[in-house]
Amino acid sequence: MSLEHGRAARLAATTRQLYDLGWMRGTSGNVSVVTQEDPRHLLVSASGIAKHSTQPEHAVTTDAQGFAVEGQKHKPSAEAQVHAAIVDEVGAHAVVHVHAMSSVLAATRWPEGVVLAGVEQLKGLGCSAEGEGYIVPVVANSQDMDDLSDRIRRALNPDIPIVLVADHGMYVWGSSLEDAANRTESADWLLQHVLLQELVSRP
Amino acid sequence: MSLEHGRAARLAATTRQLYDLGWMRGTSGNVSVVTQEDPRHLLVSASGIAKHSTQPEHAVTTDAQGFAVEGQKHKPSAEAQVHAAIVDEVGAHAVVHVHAMSSVLAATRWPEGVVLAGVEQLKGLGCSAEGEGYIVPVVANSQDMDDLSDRIRRALNPDIPIVLVADHGMYVWGSSLEDAANRTESADWLLQHVLLQELVSRP
Amino acid sequence: MSLEHGRAARLAATTRQLYDLGWMRGTSGNVSVVTQEDPRHLLVSASGIAKHSTQPEHAVTTDAQGFAVEGQKHKPSAEAQVHAAIVDEVGAHAVVHVHAMSSVLAATRWPEGVVLAGVEQLKGLGCSAEGEGYIVPVVANSQDMDDLSDRIRRALNPDIPIVLVADHGMYVWGSSLEDAANRTESADWLLQHVLLQELVSRP
Amino acid sequence: MSLEHGRAARLAATTRQLYDLGWMRGTSGNVSVVTQEDPRHLLVSASGIAKHSTQPEHAVTTDAQGFAVEGQKHKPSAEAQVHAAIVDEVGAHAVVHVHAMSSVLAATRWPEGVVLAGVEQLKGLGCSAEGEGYIVPVVANSQDMDDLSDRIRRALNPDIPIVLVADHGMYVWGSSLEDAANRTESADWLLQHVLLQELVSRP
Repeated sequence: MSLEHGRAARLAATTRQLYDLGWMRGTSGNVSVVTQEDPRHLLVSASGIAKHSTQPEHAVTTDAQGFAVEGQKHKPSAEAQVHAAIVDEVGAHAVVHVHAMSSVLAATRWPEGVVLAGVEQLKGLGCSAEGEGYIVPVVANSQDMDDLSDRIRRALNPDIPIVLVADHGMYVWGSSLEDAANRTESADWLLQHVLLQELVSRP
Repeated sequence: MSLEHGRAARLAATTRQLYDLGWMRGTSGNVSVVTQEDPRHLLVSASGIAKHSTQPEHAVTTDAQGFAVEGQKHKPSAEAQVHAAIVDEVGAHAVVHVHAMSSVLAATRWPEGVVLAGVEQLKGLGCSAEGEGYIVPVVANSQDMDDLSDRIRRALNPDIPIVLVADHGMYVWGSSLEDAANRTESADWLLQHVLLQELVSRP
Repeated sequence: MSLEHGRAARLAATTRQLYDLGWMRGTSGNVSVVTQEDPRHLLVSASGIAKHSTQPEHAVTTDAQGFAVEGQKHKPSAEAQVHAAIVDEVGAHAVVHVHAMSSVLAATRWPEGVVLAGVEQLKGLGCSAEGEGYIVPVVANSQDMDDLSDRIRRALNPDIPIVLVADHGMYVWGSSLEDAANRTESADWLLQHVLLQELVSRP
Repeated sequence: MSLEHGRAARLAATTRQLYDLGWMRGTSGNVSVVTQEDPRHLLVSASGIAKHSTQPEHAVTTDAQGFAVEGQKHKPSAEAQVHAAIVDEVGAHAVVHVHAMSSVLAATRWPEGVVLAGVEQLKGLGCSAEGEGYIVPVVANSQDMDDLSDRIRRALNPDIPIVLVADHGMYVWGSSLEDAANRTESADWLLQHVLLQELVSRP
């Protein structure tokens, strides 16, 4: 764990930043980053910790399936399996899962997928601001983490690093913790935008 | 009081956190935690203190009815009686009362009770995200604390730790100060969600 | 000025607090408190200072008409006259003027006065949460400070410490800086509430 | 660069302030200020830096066209060219570019220009709160910086220091970094106001 202390500190700082943005109310949401030793293993948020007071010791090491390595004080978030599945599927180095209100409202409004197109902020996701745009996939929620992981693996759009989980929140990933956090900020902006755009343009 | 200083410090920190979230404007709202000496007695917010600058000395000790133990500098919030009634009724260890806008709007919109169902964030209240969901009780406001306490005791839903008081705010409780604060964050998220969901889905 | 340094420090702290709440964008808004020497004289915000970085030296001493005492580095806000008029008219010890969005929207929506009634948060203004409620006066804006002061003097409702200025903002007063700031927080809550209540209850 | 260190520190502080206001999500937006040596040259935000953690070393020096002076560690934002064009066209000393949601929504709602009139907050832009008001120009977005600069040069309204870029954000300028930041706060307030005013006044 000492080798990973820098990452654990950044995991905690990113968590508190995302809490301050309003997306990790109570103990909700979780963040992960691959370990230095093995890029398939994760440092992931501990389960049941208030996000506003997350500290470096609230990081748990898991294997490539998202199950805790033995002998640790805290348990990982149950959703660690989903983080591991995303890392495996897309080769991401960090994953953010938040209960952003924008993501839940958009998933209900557009259950077949949310179209994001023609807006500059798309570049914040490594996407193009021009052309036909992107469909952000929406999957149904599940309390079974194998199920939820499979749904997300099947739904993933390789062109845009977001998946929405209906009635739940979203997953966003990137090449580093900072990249995943930056993209989460862009994702929320874009989802707020499509929702507000519709509200503003009502007759 | 010195025995309880750690709790008073946490009471003040929780108060300032809830203020920062926008739910304790001016001197509104109050927080309580049972004392270490007697789990029916409370440390509760002093009356008339600006919430943004609440300090540990702004905690007042009350008896099991919410009346101040003699010889203290500050007076407890008048609503201490309601906190004591909730602690007595459900065996909670901490109670939060806030004037969250979401709670007041939801109580007016659904005066017979607010249905919360099928959303992941319910797990933040110790509830299930699946199944039929829950009805959050709504009681009428009163300036008589005996009255208000009775209404809340009668209305309590043992399956969900929230009561809304119409034209006023909400009470949320838990097994510790941190738990009650976490649940308050989840409660506000869920109430915002039902209100916004309706707004977004208007034709 | 040194005698007043404690008040100037509190004036700056209150200003930054109200900025953080979003009501003093750019250099907008101003705050005043009566001086210790003469309760008709004011310490008032200097003109043209960015509110987020207001310091104790950005307080200017004025006479009972709101005109600057000679020999000071900064000029007082032009609206100091209005502050002085309110202090004279109601005997307040501190006045807050903010460009809260809620106050501008409510003044346009209800140009004949905003009815606030039957909501607990009214107690934060020293008002009753029961009964018929209160009409918050709305006056037209003016660039002539004598004019604006006169309008406000004539419109004042002695039962509620708020006046809205259409297309501009609101004035709120109290018995101390902290009291006026607390009341400003309650006033904004109440104005947001009447606006949102109407939005939520649309068919 | 050492001569400019004070400006670089203020550039970073202003950036973090605008991030805290929600207008520079992820790595979006950029800020510039003319250099002390040459008022046509700029210190401008580096490309690809997370705005919440911007530091003084994330400032890049450019020439009068917005192209980086050689030998610097970071690359300037691609939009540095647009900043340089605005400085050249209007003689501003500082330019702010943000992805404020209000600016994007207003540009779509009023593609022929946004009318701002009769509101006190206009004085925060150096404009009059009385009279006929102002039309804030809206230009189409472009990924070609020469194109975007030209559109902005042609569209500029000399009477109000804002240009909106549709589906993108806005540029605001002033006589100093602090002035440009203050004006950005006023611009967002005014754009929010016209959008909310319409929402509130719907039948």
